[in-house]
Amino acid sequence: MSETGHAEYVSRLQRRVNSYIAGLVVKRKPRDVNEASRHILMAGGKRVRSTLLLLACEAVGTRSTSALHAGAAVELLHNFTLVHDDVMDNAASRRGKPTMHVRWDVNTAILVGDILVGLAYENLLKTRTGNRARMQAAFTTCLLEVCRGQALDLEMGKRSDVTLSEYLLMIEKKTGYLISTAAEIGGLVGGGTLRQVEALARFGKLLGRAFQIQDDLLDIVANEKHFGKMIGGDIIEGKKTFLFITARDRASRRDRQELLNVIKPAPRVTRSRHYERVNLASALYHKYGVLDAARARIRKDTSAAMTALSALPPTSARDRLYWYSEALLKRVS
Amino acid sequence: MSETGHAEYVSRLQRRVNSYIAGLVVKRKPRDVNEASRHILMAGGKRVRSTLLLLACEAVGTRSTSALHAGAAVELLHNFTLVHDDVMDNAASRRGKPTMHVRWDVNTAILVGDILVGLAYENLLKTRTGNRARMQAAFTTCLLEVCRGQALDLEMGKRSDVTLSEYLLMIEKKTGYLISTAAEIGGLVGGGTLRQVEALARFGKLLGRAFQIQDDLLDIVANEKHFGKMIGGDIIEGKKTFLFITARDRASRRDRQELLNVIKPAPRVTRSRHYERVNLASALYHKYGVLDAARARIRKDTSAAMTALSALPPTSARDRLYWYSEALLKRVS
Repeated sequence: MSETGHAEYVSRLQRRVNSYIAGLVVKRKPRDVNEASRHILMAGGKRVRSTLLLLACEAVGTRSTSALHAGAAVELLHNFTLVHDDVMDNAASRRGKPTMHVRWDVNTAILVGDILVGLAYENLLKTRTGNRARMQAAFTTCLLEVCRGQALDLEMGKRSDVTLSEYLLMIEKKTGYLISTAAEIGGLVGGGTLRQVEALARFGKLLGRAFQIQDDLLDIVANEKHFGKMIGGDIIEGKKTFLFITARDRASRRDRQELLNVIKPAPRVTRSRHYERVNLASALYHKYGVLDAARARIRKDTSAAMTALSALPPTSARDRLYWYSEALLKRVS
Repeated sequence: MSETGHAEYVSRLQRRVNSYIAGLVVKRKPRDVNEASRHILMAGGKRVRSTLLLLACEAVGTRSTSALHAGAAVELLHNFTLVHDDVMDNAASRRGKPTMHVRWDVNTAILVGDILVGLAYENLLKTRTGNRARMQAAFTTCLLEVCRGQALDLEMGKRSDVTLSEYLLMIEKKTGYLISTAAEIGGLVGGGTLRQVEALARFGKLLGRAFQIQDDLLDIVANEKHFGKMIGGDIIEGKKTFLFITARDRASRRDRQELLNVIKPAPRVTRSRHYERVNLASALYHKYGVLDAARARIRKDTSAAMTALSALPPTSARDRLYWYSEALLKRVS
């Protein structure tokens, strides 16, 4: 199939997920919680996780209609993490719009997150598959690991000595697990063999890592218009990203000190001070080649993710998984 | 079996639940989240929901060891609601100790609540029963209804015109569902007939309502030493309880106005102003006989709950359910 063919196919899946999810957010009392749920669920996410789940199901030879409930479940779980993480990170905007706890309040955000977990399970339980128990166990482990990843992230936010392996473990849990579990559940719902399901999980894990490092990179190299927010947010928030950790480890003593000063979190900064700090960090990132190091790491993980897929039968469905993974890592926001 | 026999039997079940739950909170990174989880799970709760689940399992003729995982699951779900509700209600203490968001912080409380939901499902999924799908569906509906009940409670907190039927619907969701689901799941795990399981769910629903109205009553009539907190907290927080709603509906225009003034939420009150307000409300509650109305309602619901149990075989296991329900409603804290 052509590039355009793949793109059209994937958008069709995404539209199907969107209309399914739209059907979940019916009018219900109380109003605030309902409106806020609709706000987050219909805010134009890219449906990466559900798309991967559906593509993985097809890649083991099963029509993806049977995986729609499970696809919605991972999407709901993902949105739960966004809402609660935004509260915990005190984030002001998401996808260019005010976050839920800003537009409504913290209580609504906590409650909507909790409800999203319930809805996620409600949809998961509707999935018909011979692998019910394994699917449910994978989903539950994912919920727990995502929370543990967020806990690690919060804890690392207070330290400046986070190592690269600690960072990689944290993103494996916080970001990688949901992507890996999406691919795994797609394989399970599709009735894949043990070897195929494991290959899909491994593919998702590597892709998830590449995806997060890409996120770290975009924070510096993105075009703000496409990005929907100011670049350098991670620096201002003092996030210990792949870029920061690599630069810190490579820098001279003096540069390291400067970098540590620049990323000290300061809650309120003026626009010009924001860019001043981002430029300082960015200059150090260039000086020590960490943007290239990130790109190399992304390429390496993506390539290993693709290799994992060789355990699947060589079908056009597998081609679409290849194509989608590459498309994801070319994204600009 | 004698009173003492029942009491001993039930404490044995509770000890079994406690030691099982203690085993779940193993040492794990990160430290804060782990310590806070242990704090809430081992803070001396009465294990009402898991006890009911185990007793219900026995009442349909099955040994309760098979229901221990599910018992832990409802207890974990209950503790999740406590932690998140305390954040949302801005509660300072629970069981005589500082709440989690006070002792740690809001982020830890949000995260620990989320993790408790994951642990709850993890344990639920370990349960071996022929009624797996129904058990999981009941549990998930319960999670959603409890959240919706909390949403209603928050919304009602802002209004003074809450009707008694709105209040009853809210507590049915917020408090009743977990108790009713505990009894229902006990029946399911025990392999009860459809009729028995429905009877247990109905029993739990009525008992849950009586339990909550008892809670409302204790806020006024409890002995502070046993209660572990100042009486009248509901009045100071402006909660729309059974007592308040009944008094408001029965009061003369003038008394109603006074009552509405007294329960207007005021975040910081001195100790003497606290008691002054509580005494004013309490006097009106006595004047309009609402404490007696609450007691009558508790008796009526308890008695209907007991009647529901007549669908179960007349065994000593059923006697223990009777005994435990009565013991619950004689509690002083």
